[in-house]
This record gives sequence, C-alpha cells and structure tokens, in this order.
Amino acid sequence: MKLLRVGAPGEERPAVRGDDGRLLDLSSVAPDIDGAFLASGGVDRARAAVEAGTLPELDVEGLRVGAPVARPGKVICVGLNYRDHAAETGAAIPPRPVVFMKDPGTVVGPYDEVLIPRGSVRTDWEVELGVVIGRPARYLEGPEEAAGVIAGYVVSHDVSEREFQLDYSSQWDLGKSCETFNPMGPWLVTADEVGDPQDLGLRLTVNGVKRQHGHTRDMIFPVHEIVAYLSQYMVLQPGDVINTGTPAGVALGLPGTPYLRPGDTVELEIDGLGSQRQTFGQA
Amino acid sequence: MKLLRVGAPGEERPAVRGDDGRLLDLSSVAPDIDGAFLASGGVDRARAAVEAGTLPELDVEGLRVGAPVARPGKVICVGLNYRDHAAETGAAIPPRPVVFMKDPGTVVGPYDEVLIPRGSVRTDWEVELGVVIGRPARYLEGPEEAAGVIAGYVVSHDVSEREFQLDYSSQWDLGKSCETFNPMGPWLVTADEVGDPQDLGLRLTVNGVKRQHGHTRDMIFPVHEIVAYLSQYMVLQPGDVINTGTPAGVALGLPGTPYLRPGDTVELEIDGLGSQRQTFGQA
Repeated sequence: MKLLRVGAPGEERPAVRGDDGRLLDLSSVAPDIDGAFLASGGVDRARAAVEAGTLPELDVEGLRVGAPVARPGKVICVGLNYRDHAAETGAAIPPRPVVFMKDPGTVVGPYDEVLIPRGSVRTDWEVELGVVIGRPARYLEGPEEAAGVIAGYVVSHDVSEREFQLDYSSQWDLGKSCETFNPMGPWLVTADEVGDPQDLGLRLTVNGVKRQHGHTRDMIFPVHEIVAYLSQYMVLQPGDVINTGTPAGVALGLPGTPYLRPGDTVELEIDGLGSQRQTFGQA
Repeated sequence: MKLLRVGAPGEERPAVRGDDGRLLDLSSVAPDIDGAFLASGGVDRARAAVEAGTLPELDVEGLRVGAPVARPGKVICVGLNYRDHAAETGAAIPPRPVVFMKDPGTVVGPYDEVLIPRGSVRTDWEVELGVVIGRPARYLEGPEEAAGVIAGYVVSHDVSEREFQLDYSSQWDLGKSCETFNPMGPWLVTADEVGDPQDLGLRLTVNGVKRQHGHTRDMIFPVHEIVAYLSQYMVLQPGDVINTGTPAGVALGLPGTPYLRPGDTVELEIDGLGSQRQTFGQA
C-alpha cells in the first residue's frame, strides 16, 4: 500500500494511492499519518477501508503532496554507507555505521522548493532510501528482528551543505539541518509491497544530467543490520525515519564539484517508491 | 515565572510554581507546556491566570515532576563550550561552536531513573544550561536579537556514553541519544526571571562528591551568540532546546575516569533554576 499526505503545508490530509493512480481520502480513518497512526495499527485500518470500498476519491488537480509521515520524532542518518560514496569522499570504509542526525523540521514534501542557505556555496544532493519505523524498538536481538519494526520505505533527499558539514566543526549535523533540507516521499510504501530493501535501484539527475545511479545491494550495512544496530543505542519510535546513506555521484566527489545553484532542478527516484522533483531557491 | 509539568510519564499536566513553593494547576489555561503553548503566548496567559488568583492548588504529595517542556522538536547541543572542559578532554578551543544533536526522545523528568545502556562501561555526566526557544528564529541578525526568541532556561543533564560517542565513529550523536539520557527540569524559568544567562553557577555531585562546579561566564560562546549562530544554519522552533555545553569535571577528564555505575546518584543544580537528582539503573 502507498500512503501519502496531501494539501497545504501544515494542513495535509492522509490518503491512499491506488494502483491506478487514484487517490482515496483517508481522513475518515485517521487524522494524519504519523507515529500514532503507525503505532495503533493504522496501516491495517487503512487497508480494511480500501477493501471496503467506502473511501471518497480525492481530486488530484493542483493538489500539493506533503511528506508522507508527519512530524518524525527524529531523523537518523547513516553516513558513508555505500562503498563507492565512501571512496569518492576520500573516507575509509567505516567499521561501524557512522550515525548522525538531522533536524526533523527539515522534512518537506517531494516537490517543494528547497532553499540554498544564505552564504552557502557548497549545497549538495544525496538520494537515499528512507526507512520509516512502525513499532517501538529497543535492543533488538539481531537483524532478523528488524523487519517487524519497519512500517515501510520512502525516497529521502538528504540535502547537505558541505562547508557547514565538514569545515565548521568535526560534527556534521549543522550542514544537514538547514531549512527544507529533507524532501521526503511522495509515498510511504509499506514493507510488504517493497519486498527486499536490498534490491532497489536509486537514481538522481540534476538539470537532466544523471549524477547518481546506485543500488541498495551495495550498502555496507544493510537496512536490517542498521535498524538492529541503532536499537542498541537509542529507542526507535513509530514515525522515526532512518536515512540509510547515499551512493556515489554527489557534487563533493565530482570533477569541478558542481554544487547546486538557485534555479537548479533535482529529480530523484527509487524503484517502487516513486520520484521527487525539486527546484532550488535562495533562502 | 517557573513552569513545570507534573504527573505520570505521558500524562503530565502543566503547573506554575509560586515563590512559596506551592504548585498551581495550569490545566484550565493550556493542555500542556510545549511548542504550541510557547508560540501562542501561553506564558502571558499563565501569568494573567496566576495574577487573577483563580488557579487551583495541586497536592504535591508523591507527585512526579516531568520535563518542563513536552516533546521538543529537537535537542541541539554545543560541545566543548567551556575552556576548562575542552582542556580536560584534550580538545583545542574550537573556532566555531561544535554542534550536534540528541534524540529528543531522551528527555525525561529531573528525578527519573537514568538507564546505563547495555554494554556500557563509560557512561558520564554533564550538567548544562538548557535554553528553551519561545519563538521561531531564522537568520537572526546578531546576538542582540537572540533574547527575543528565548522563552527561558532549564537545568539539562546531557548524559553521555563516551565509547559510543568517541570510539564508534567520528560522529557523537550515538553516545548522546541513549534511552533516558536527557533529564530536564524541574522548571522552565522564564528569561525575565533568570536575567543574565552568563551569570549562573552550575554544580554537579556524584554520590555526594563534588565533580563539576562551573560558571556560565566561562562559556566560549555565550548563549545569545549560540542562538544567533544556530539560526544561520537551521530554523529554531518554539519548544526546541539547546544544551549549551558543560564545564570541567566529567568522568572522562578525571583521574581514574570514574564512570557511572548502577546505583550511583547524581545531583545537579544551576543558580535560580532548581536542582535534579537521578539514581542510575541498568537498561
């Protein structure tokens, strides 16, 4: 099932996308798609309502798509999780996941404008597989327990400002937390529909030029290992999002480091999870 | 004014503490003390209700005190912000604030049990002045604009696991985000009552032994500079909390590195902001 949230920022309503592309209004089932929805069996209720055939159809004309999960309690990121990306940034293959965080307030819709921060000359792109947590998780016994706490997956754009991230201090969060720096969606695709999270291609273009073309089979730490690992050190809660790292092809690693400028358009897609498109503006 | 939240975890109700130590129930004024309360003039409404003399008194007998702000959208930390602490950890004086984040889910009440993570042998204490944001802030023009966006101050305990923080990767968030790792409170003291945030003594004892005794005048980056700085790189929202760094005296920097063990009791206080007391348990 594909869950989404549509409407003006802060006024999104929950919806389901059918295989025919039609959107059904989920407002009668739940006020929003968030941690409380996921924790309380909302996905099952939505599925039952779809099967009952009682949900009204939404007019998609001009409808904004928001991020498919409201107000994540945290956005956790795993850095350098693809061998080719670690190599292009000059970093060694990490022996453990490199874990950092973004301000969850950075999450915006998949087609929203992304703002280049004032003073930035090194704003960069990163297509990532986002994992949405569906049940509380602490001290999982191993990767085999991880599937049970994952609600589903999203396309996540981990926009990054390299000067703020890498030059201003040893800690990366500052360059990951700028306003609008985490477009998410269009859909939360439930885990049953995604199947194997290590069998997904990821692609990103800038102004139509292919820049990233990776595959989740090349992750150093696969999704279920990441979830089990994180649960040893923090409590994962429904609605939390994990950005699982980006493959090679970011501006930082390209000849001429072609960082983003106002007016640039970035398109991202992941197999089965849909596509995003953002035009960059100036904060 | 001193605002607090009392009751069982997840069921706290808002209250005001009078100068005589009595607690007045704020439930008739607002459902909770959170970002929405602070953003909508809740402090002024609470003050008017206190002056009107209509608020019922709460029976404090056996009443748990929660964190004074519900669900911070983010908890931002500034590392190495006291000269003596930077020295004890062997770090250079940073040229810019070192900014990282904690899982906001780590926030617990000031007297709640703190859990030493499984496998941890290097759990450490850090008394810090916490800044609570009261209005949205982006691109402040300078420190002189910061006072207008600060709701008040809290005692914040930035509990840290040094192996997870320093040895597992280059990024610190993992060792800062363990379950229960951010006791906060007992009160949110409004900025007008605190006065100069650079004129506060901070003290911490472990099992009655004095370990930290610092003063906010020794911050490398003072509070208003930190707030203005952060606003250049992220949007600060009402209810967000900034932990402004810890003075010298943490276990990491002491002879014999006396890290915390189950059963240890830590007491923290900051001038005018009240005191905390936690007994450590095992996760």
